[in-house]
Amino acid sequence: MDDASPPKWHLAHTTWFFETFILKSELSGYRSVDERYEYLFNSYYNGVGNPFPRPKRGYLSRPTVAEVMDYRESVDEQMETLLGSENPDVVSRVILGLNHEQQHQELLLTDLKYNFGNNPLYPVYRERAEENPAGSADMTFVSFDGGISAIGGPEGFGFDNEYPCHEVLLQPFALADRLVTNGEYLEFIQDGGYERAELWLSEGWATVLDDAWSHPLYWRAVEGEWFEYRLDGLSRLDPHLPVVHASAHEAFAYATWKGVRLPTEFEWERAAQDLDVEGTFVESGRYHPGHCPESGGLIRQMYGDVWQWTGSSYGPYPGYKTLPGTLGEYNGKFMSSQLVLRGASCATPRDHARLTYRNFFYPADRWQFSGIRLAKGLPE
Amino acid sequence: MDDASPPKWHLAHTTWFFETFILKSELSGYRSVDERYEYLFNSYYNGVGNPFPRPKRGYLSRPTVAEVMDYRESVDEQMETLLGSENPDVVSRVILGLNHEQQHQELLLTDLKYNFGNNPLYPVYRERAEENPAGSADMTFVSFDGGISAIGGPEGFGFDNEYPCHEVLLQPFALADRLVTNGEYLEFIQDGGYERAELWLSEGWATVLDDAWSHPLYWRAVEGEWFEYRLDGLSRLDPHLPVVHASAHEAFAYATWKGVRLPTEFEWERAAQDLDVEGTFVESGRYHPGHCPESGGLIRQMYGDVWQWTGSSYGPYPGYKTLPGTLGEYNGKFMSSQLVLRGASCATPRDHARLTYRNFFYPADRWQFSGIRLAKGLPE
Amino acid sequence: MDDASPPKWHLAHTTWFFETFILKSELSGYRSVDERYEYLFNSYYNGVGNPFPRPKRGYLSRPTVAEVMDYRESVDEQMETLLGSENPDVVSRVILGLNHEQQHQELLLTDLKYNFGNNPLYPVYRERAEENPAGSADMTFVSFDGGISAIGGPEGFGFDNEYPCHEVLLQPFALADRLVTNGEYLEFIQDGGYERAELWLSEGWATVLDDAWSHPLYWRAVEGEWFEYRLDGLSRLDPHLPVVHASAHEAFAYATWKGVRLPTEFEWERAAQDLDVEGTFVESGRYHPGHCPESGGLIRQMYGDVWQWTGSSYGPYPGYKTLPGTLGEYNGKFMSSQLVLRGASCATPRDHARLTYRNFFYPADRWQFSGIRLAKGLPE
Amino acid sequence: MDDASPPKWHLAHTTWFFETFILKSELSGYRSVDERYEYLFNSYYNGVGNPFPRPKRGYLSRPTVAEVMDYRESVDEQMETLLGSENPDVVSRVILGLNHEQQHQELLLTDLKYNFGNNPLYPVYRERAEENPAGSADMTFVSFDGGISAIGGPEGFGFDNEYPCHEVLLQPFALADRLVTNGEYLEFIQDGGYERAELWLSEGWATVLDDAWSHPLYWRAVEGEWFEYRLDGLSRLDPHLPVVHASAHEAFAYATWKGVRLPTEFEWERAAQDLDVEGTFVESGRYHPGHCPESGGLIRQMYGDVWQWTGSSYGPYPGYKTLPGTLGEYNGKFMSSQLVLRGASCATPRDHARLTYRNFFYPADRWQFSGIRLAKGLPE
Repeated sequence: MDDASPPKWHLAHTTWFFETFILKSELSGYRSVDERYEYLFNSYYNGVGNPFPRPKRGYLSRPTVAEVMDYRESVDEQMETLLGSENPDVVSRVILGLNHEQQHQELLLTDLKYNFGNNPLYPVYRERAEENPAGSADMTFVSFDGGISAIGGPEGFGFDNEYPCHEVLLQPFALADRLVTNGEYLEFIQDGGYERAELWLSEGWATVLDDAWSHPLYWRAVEGEWFEYRLDGLSRLDPHLPVVHASAHEAFAYATWKGVRLPTEFEWERAAQDLDVEGTFVESGRYHPGHCPESGGLIRQMYGDVWQWTGSSYGPYPGYKTLPGTLGEYNGKFMSSQLVLRGASCATPRDHARLTYRNFFYPADRWQFSGIRLAKGLPE
Repeated sequence: MDDASPPKWHLAHTTWFFETFILKSELSGYRSVDERYEYLFNSYYNGVGNPFPRPKRGYLSRPTVAEVMDYRESVDEQMETLLGSENPDVVSRVILGLNHEQQHQELLLTDLKYNFGNNPLYPVYRERAEENPAGSADMTFVSFDGGISAIGGPEGFGFDNEYPCHEVLLQPFALADRLVTNGEYLEFIQDGGYERAELWLSEGWATVLDDAWSHPLYWRAVEGEWFEYRLDGLSRLDPHLPVVHASAHEAFAYATWKGVRLPTEFEWERAAQDLDVEGTFVESGRYHPGHCPESGGLIRQMYGDVWQWTGSSYGPYPGYKTLPGTLGEYNGKFMSSQLVLRGASCATPRDHARLTYRNFFYPADRWQFSGIRLAKGLPE
Repeated sequence: MDDASPPKWHLAHTTWFFETFILKSELSGYRSVDERYEYLFNSYYNGVGNPFPRPKRGYLSRPTVAEVMDYRESVDEQMETLLGSENPDVVSRVILGLNHEQQHQELLLTDLKYNFGNNPLYPVYRERAEENPAGSADMTFVSFDGGISAIGGPEGFGFDNEYPCHEVLLQPFALADRLVTNGEYLEFIQDGGYERAELWLSEGWATVLDDAWSHPLYWRAVEGEWFEYRLDGLSRLDPHLPVVHASAHEAFAYATWKGVRLPTEFEWERAAQDLDVEGTFVESGRYHPGHCPESGGLIRQMYGDVWQWTGSSYGPYPGYKTLPGTLGEYNGKFMSSQLVLRGASCATPRDHARLTYRNFFYPADRWQFSGIRLAKGLPE
Repeated sequence: MDDASPPKWHLAHTTWFFETFILKSELSGYRSVDERYEYLFNSYYNGVGNPFPRPKRGYLSRPTVAEVMDYRESVDEQMETLLGSENPDVVSRVILGLNHEQQHQELLLTDLKYNFGNNPLYPVYRERAEENPAGSADMTFVSFDGGISAIGGPEGFGFDNEYPCHEVLLQPFALADRLVTNGEYLEFIQDGGYERAELWLSEGWATVLDDAWSHPLYWRAVEGEWFEYRLDGLSRLDPHLPVVHASAHEAFAYATWKGVRLPTEFEWERAAQDLDVEGTFVESGRYHPGHCPESGGLIRQMYGDVWQWTGSSYGPYPGYKTLPGTLGEYNGKFMSSQLVLRGASCATPRDHARLTYRNFFYPADRWQFSGIRLAKGLPE
């Protein structure tokens, strides 16, 4: 798939980020390990020149993994000389580089899962962890008043797209207290969900027809029974786990079928503001292969299980400013045709998750650990 | 182009709408002129069956224009028996059918312009009207306070997507008092606008490269001079007329180049609430071929010249409900990946324009009469 | 379909041919009816400039049919002044122009049939002719000795690709005495012909899968019964008529299924040399809508029913020379990846058919009136 | 590129061939190393089931190279028990398997070269060998009489497509005594070869435009000078070496530019019949990286430098029979749209080359070691 890159590429690209945006400007006389890496491992920064085509990353049999590890080591060594810097610009770019690498830690897993999940051998990436999904209790909806809420603008680190803090006016709404499960999603399939045009957005229905969608990305029907490919191998589908690797189109169709809708990103953030986040994390944060069982709390599974599609288009907050220079290409230029996901998945590094984080993908994308949380307006 | 249909098809499809949604349900024993028209002239209503493929509409050499006119006459005759009906459901569907036909009156012109504009013969559709563009005064920005505004929910007719009336919280903003002109847009081109990746959204830049965009849709360079194809033929580019047939990507890049942005649809509607709409119409409403000169008023050219791209994704208002039954496919299922345009163009039937109207197209679309109005946040 | 052009285009292009290759060079001071027609109606002659893209011919709503007829009339008038010329170069180009127009008379019908045959209304092009297919007698194979045969080089008019006359060495072979019928082809379908990869060439099987082929181009299954679209409308499939609108891939698969093969173009010509061609024509030459019943003669249906795929790639005869100048693009540049068809179809102008004629299309093409004649080597 | 497979796949596929076509039928109770390999490593034998899609072979990160080597070892061990067999059917399939593996030894190199040659790092596959191209003498043409020649039907091993031996009638012709060199091909480029439509077949010209061809596959212009990627790295273009990685379209255009043509496969074989093949091999057989310098002999460089495009379509010899069963898919089903190449390249295992060998590729293919030998008819 054009969007997925091999592990070696992620390893090199995250190192390239430090080299390009810090070493080259901060270390006078810095000499690149290999000048051609600037081209090979540029993801999409036009300001650094024309990047190597994304769909062809998988064809690069050279540099080898060993050469990439050497590259990392060399850049790491140079970076160490800068880690004590008190130059605030350097500090902020180092922090950005670390957060960037954390994003790629997750992408490396989702891309690897895509590669393995489409290999008929279904390779096992890691051993199966013990699981004790307690059984999914009935889904209930938690009500929130309308009114003005402050959105975005985290005190600690945040990407530029999370700023500035600003106020939005919400109507009263209710949010589901847990994620939609495999078992619930299966009912949608069994009710003809993938054959009923009226449940889908027009683009979604076109994708269902063009790509012959009939189930989430990694579900496999084997002799009349449902299995799911997970990082621990092909497993019998567990009806109590959250459905994962659903696109926004599937999330939308499911919600329509249930007579409800997806939350906006503002509703999600408003609801999450009331959570004891730390507490939530303790319970949900078991990093299971592929997805994670539910957690306790008034509204559970906000972080650490699956990203949750919102109905909100990914756009700029009022007064949004991109980072200066080429780093300004980090987020802002993708603000068209994508939707925001909120939360964090079991593949997200734990301290990378936060209240104001705005993940974004196209509505047909489903190779991320993306799932479904429902919402509705009040009164209904 | 896949999106453009021949005039004959528009004539038949608008008639099909009355037949399908009114005659077939209201007239017992109604017999269709030709049952196969139900399939041929269905645009996208899956509830009426699988529509004839849109890109192939142009291949239908039959029925002939004469047969389509007979079809229209036959349906019109039957409709007359229902026009006096007091059944509110019939009344509302008749009104919807009329508004639907008004939409297609505009589409018929844009599609025809596309066909003519891509014919090397540049056929003339209508005679040139007299023009006296007064010269475009300097663009100024009109300021608006922030606060809560009521949006949508017109008292007269409105499509389902304009409801319900609801409140939004706006930050202080300023809106340009007129549209961007050809002359101004030309400066953008001359400053390398189509060669500077940093001005474009990522999707927009990909389109610039893939489709080799270097100017608005109907601009033509002939021996070093700029011309523009208009419905009155190929004309020397008039720098005082509003730029038209720009995509949202071009509008965005232009605004970025100017250091400002596009308005949200809510800002546009808020500003238009203050206008003496009738007055504005009187002045701007000269229906010129292709575009129209400027009009008077504090904020000019809101209606009747070109549709104005907003930065707002086309989505549901809080509490949005689609129409019941198959007519529910009219608007709601397109609420992904598109942007809202506001105002009305010189091809829009005059009494079809209104304050709350939400037109929507994909950000790369530019065969509609779409132009650019700028905005900015306050304080800058 | 990209290969099919509207009738108006054929009318204009054949006139363009006379204008471009005769009037412009022979009439001093000749003024074109419209200089832009040179571009619009050029089919593929790079020597005359960059032709208007073939797939877009159908979008040219201008010039109108009336304007094209005026163009024809104007060129015809000018041509009359040259018809008495004794300049052998002019004479030969006039004859070439006439043969070119005869080719387009056939193409106009096949393209029109494609347009009508893909219109759900199945328009009728002409009235049904009376038919009395006598019932197809058992197919027998007529034997021919091997040895050296003279091929090509007709005494009357021939295209450049029919020259020079040269000798080929044939092995003993046998040719079927008639064409394969619809009824026979139906048996192939019923025996799973379209589901058995082993019967097909690799490219053919890929087409079967990609384009979901399961029958000849214009066959339609309606409520369990087979119909065929013909120029006289949708008709119940007549098992006694020759199968038509089969691709070379289908012809090859059918022959393989029967344990025989297609003839080479040399075998076909060798066999046809023995025919009383005139006599054959008298009997077969009833120009039926879509296809024609069988004719008498030792080997029947060589001309006037359907073109017959051969197994021979379309290439140059030893010593082949193209015409001088731009007319050299007429035939030679298509000598790759295509196969030769021999004979003539019921859409071929009668005096256009001849022994040495080499028609050529891609093996997957099937919108021409193409059918199947079988052959085999001897001894088997 | 869809046609190129990774080395690991070639290693596994050639082993799969022995397992599928010998071990599974000859060893009762044979148990496959991994039953899923039957699917993964099937190239195109529909008789063995639906093969894994060719363009996706590069995505198979599992089995690993080590697992593939285990697979080879296991199958090799089992094969040893059969190598002494006197069953003629087993013997012939073992020989076929060995020849099949020899073909893939060459393909492995061409595919690897494609991968390396498109990597901006231009990896070096092997050390540069010493070269002493003696300077290319003037090209002369060696004449051959016409008449009947026996073609095909080698006494030793041959593929099914080389049989049966049969006679063809040749016209007098002349064959170039050596291959076209880089230096000669450069003159073609400098004379506008890639900009002159009249030199190209229609399909070839379309490829030139679509794929922006302006030189052979691995030529690279670096700061105004020509380089060529070879298996020993990026080298300055050597004008005395044969041009290589030319498509048939380029070979055709070059020949047309020179006023001559390509040989037919029969002319090539006829000429090669007169050669002291062993002697030729001794001289030409220095296996240089990428291509090899010229050799002695009346007609030089027939084998061991580059494959030579012929103008002959790849088709069946009269009386051709495929192998029985699934092995019948080996050659015959590719007999459409491809051209025959004769000779052998420097990547061909030396004892795999022979007089009657028919290699075949599509006319636009150029990732094989394919070059140009000229021919002409006599008298000219």
